[in-house]
Amino acid sequence: MADPFVVVGGDAAGLSAASKCRRTDPDRDVVVFEKGQWISYAHCGTPYFVKGEVEHLENLLSLSPAAVAERGIDLRRGHEVVEVDTESRTVTVRAGGEPFEQPYGDLIIATGARAVDDPIEGSSLDRVFTLHGLDDAAAIRAYLTPPDEFAVADLGGDDAVATDVAERYGAMTPPETVAIVGAGYVGVEMAEAFDAWDVDVHLFQRSARPVPGFGDAVGDAVIEVLRDADVTTHFGEEVVRLRGDGGTVDAVVCDTGSELDVDAALVGIGIRPNAELAADTPINLGASGAVATDAYGRTSVGDVYAAGDVAEMPHTVTGEATWDPLGLPANRAGRAIGATVGGKPTPVGSVAETAMVKAFDLECGRTGILDHQRAREAGFDPVAKTITAGSRSGYYPGAAETTVTLVADRDTGQLLGGSIAGTDRAAVRIDTVATALGGELTVGELERQDLGYAPPFSPVWDPVLVAAKVLNGSLP
Amino acid sequence: MADPFVVVGGDAAGLSAASKCRRTDPDRDVVVFEKGQWISYAHCGTPYFVKGEVEHLENLLSLSPAAVAERGIDLRRGHEVVEVDTESRTVTVRAGGEPFEQPYGDLIIATGARAVDDPIEGSSLDRVFTLHGLDDAAAIRAYLTPPDEFAVADLGGDDAVATDVAERYGAMTPPETVAIVGAGYVGVEMAEAFDAWDVDVHLFQRSARPVPGFGDAVGDAVIEVLRDADVTTHFGEEVVRLRGDGGTVDAVVCDTGSELDVDAALVGIGIRPNAELAADTPINLGASGAVATDAYGRTSVGDVYAAGDVAEMPHTVTGEATWDPLGLPANRAGRAIGATVGGKPTPVGSVAETAMVKAFDLECGRTGILDHQRAREAGFDPVAKTITAGSRSGYYPGAAETTVTLVADRDTGQLLGGSIAGTDRAAVRIDTVATALGGELTVGELERQDLGYAPPFSPVWDPVLVAAKVLNGSLP
Repeated sequence: MADPFVVVGGDAAGLSAASKCRRTDPDRDVVVFEKGQWISYAHCGTPYFVKGEVEHLENLLSLSPAAVAERGIDLRRGHEVVEVDTESRTVTVRAGGEPFEQPYGDLIIATGARAVDDPIEGSSLDRVFTLHGLDDAAAIRAYLTPPDEFAVADLGGDDAVATDVAERYGAMTPPETVAIVGAGYVGVEMAEAFDAWDVDVHLFQRSARPVPGFGDAVGDAVIEVLRDADVTTHFGEEVVRLRGDGGTVDAVVCDTGSELDVDAALVGIGIRPNAELAADTPINLGASGAVATDAYGRTSVGDVYAAGDVAEMPHTVTGEATWDPLGLPANRAGRAIGATVGGKPTPVGSVAETAMVKAFDLECGRTGILDHQRAREAGFDPVAKTITAGSRSGYYPGAAETTVTLVADRDTGQLLGGSIAGTDRAAVRIDTVATALGGELTVGELERQDLGYAPPFSPVWDPVLVAAKVLNGSLP
Repeated sequence: MADPFVVVGGDAAGLSAASKCRRTDPDRDVVVFEKGQWISYAHCGTPYFVKGEVEHLENLLSLSPAAVAERGIDLRRGHEVVEVDTESRTVTVRAGGEPFEQPYGDLIIATGARAVDDPIEGSSLDRVFTLHGLDDAAAIRAYLTPPDEFAVADLGGDDAVATDVAERYGAMTPPETVAIVGAGYVGVEMAEAFDAWDVDVHLFQRSARPVPGFGDAVGDAVIEVLRDADVTTHFGEEVVRLRGDGGTVDAVVCDTGSELDVDAALVGIGIRPNAELAADTPINLGASGAVATDAYGRTSVGDVYAAGDVAEMPHTVTGEATWDPLGLPANRAGRAIGATVGGKPTPVGSVAETAMVKAFDLECGRTGILDHQRAREAGFDPVAKTITAGSRSGYYPGAAETTVTLVADRDTGQLLGGSIAGTDRAAVRIDTVATALGGELTVGELERQDLGYAPPFSPVWDPVLVAAKVLNGSLP
């Protein structure tokens, strides 16, 4: 019997690979090592758990350990893979006692990413949070809940939750003022979550606008909803230090010298791939620091794959290796690798860095290359247009302004990217643009796509088509 | 100075052509002949005017005559073009007095379509309606309004509305029971409109399901919402006769022999292109009876174009000439022809027959080729799969079941068409499928599109991707 398919990491990419491998080849042994207790959970749902819209931690789990076992997968939680030996084709696993060796036939590294360690001075003070995982989410919600209403059991999550941390925060008086450092999508979603608990929210961002990856027009629209929601925005200000007496944060300090007294801080400055396993192996990392892979998710070492937040994937527009740590690419690549390992070679596809974010009632989306500098580096001559158009026929109740930006290459008209913001069915419309990127359409071709029209859902010219018309009309 | 660009028909296609021609070549004379009084109105909005969600008729007008004049277009309402002479390059126009001849440099036939004349026996009885145009909509809403609340001025529409008809219906006691003959999208939308006036609605359809163009899965979903809304459905029953004593309808009679007493009937069985102008000219009609055109909207006669509901266009999937009388193709083709005539040759694009319909709270969409017989006739070997998946992450409030059908060619995997139904952002997701058709994607490529994911809007695997996964997995 062949050595098993060994999966390192029990989240989206790892469990997708494990499950698909078993379905493709039911005779193949599959072992999953997960260093923590949580498996297969929805990172992107954590702000809504903190907010309280999602009631229990287990609501965020896609698969229970029991369901994994039912698929015939040997899942070992609390097992950390600390070394890979690609010569002997073994991994070294630590789980409490003596480390042991596990031989593999095929291996996938799906170790994910983590919040940047100590991103700013003072990050290790008490009541300074990051949001990367269910234990973080549990701690923050515990802290936001008044002590007399708090019960650790209400968080859900059974055996997996870090009870001691949650109970410590659950006993504290909830914060009145919170600083969120970093207005990426986690920062913006967490502003909504804190606001729902009537916390005075201050949102800091080094650049002039929030969600910089979504482009200027979306950033401007998000600024408007944040201000309408009474979130205090500090944009163009860099937080250089979290200050605290007695080990607990009590203020944030900016590069401008300004200070703000706070009860707590959430730092959402960035994440990094957990690529340490590749160190001292012939498994190559890419320029991003994530593991380099080919079209089938293979690393530079035969029979070793990587997927999810730890791996690079080719970019839909440029073909260049790209680190895009988001949910769908992780699931898709994991699933493809599982099929490949199971005997049915399947490409992992590419990433357009498509993303969506909800900012209070505003729906935002982005895909492809919006940044002009980056477009130029990839050999394009970018031209962009931003338009505002209705989400429905103008006469139909509920039509809402929808802002669309499209970027194309001046000479060829090739579509490079797009973004969207609006309150009515805006985010899902970015999928039209993402699919146009996948089909390598020019902006002229996008303008002629036969999209749907019905007064309650979409005007004759969908906002995406309006943007394509305007951008195409501006090209030589 | 060249002879003018003559536009026959003042609705979507005609006025798009006229406007774009003027913008492209501001020196070009443009004359628009419209036989009626209404111009540039939103057909698709008429059910919502009847329902009362859209208050005034003028809300449905995209352009006023004054706005058309401001664009430098010579608009002549009440002018019917009765003949085209492609030899002498003139049209004969009737407007009250003696017909006159108008020379043209370029000509566009944009005469639209009309409800089928006398589709069933008894169609000319009083209180039997069709819904094709604002005067029809005005008459039906007048009839639904209690006489003591009715005032013709409340309909809006100023000088254009057919006041005598509206006033006659406004004086009648509103109907208690109405039969809708034909459950295409107009029939379904009108069921909602009548229901809003507390009318007892009976919906008849010859085939087993409503909206047959949307495929079986959507049809089944629509049946469910119709029944929830207490619309009585008579599917698989053909209405063969509208019966009436004294000239007014009082019953519908089916092929099964069953009869139903009604106060009024709406017949929505079909429309036909107004292609009579091409008779006795070398302008060719296609197999559909609509005017045949090339990639630039040109007919078989040089300098004569056709667009909108009177014309055929190439199909996105098959390339075959297709009659697809919907709003976006009309606007797009008209606009392209205006640009071409103005000196900037622009293709009209193709049609995927993408359509959306709202059935009470259900959003439906369709695109491409769903019908297997038609797919086979076009040389494909169709395989279809239907799935149901959530519209959001399962844990996020408001996630709704979304049903997606995709059809692909067995051997090549080429995507042929798709449909969707659901209550949460379902309809706009059909645009992803439409764009995939435009990009000539295989279903495997669609499965790998990098669509957006955010718990409030879309699960990790958008329902369209779930369908693509399942269909692709079923292909050899």
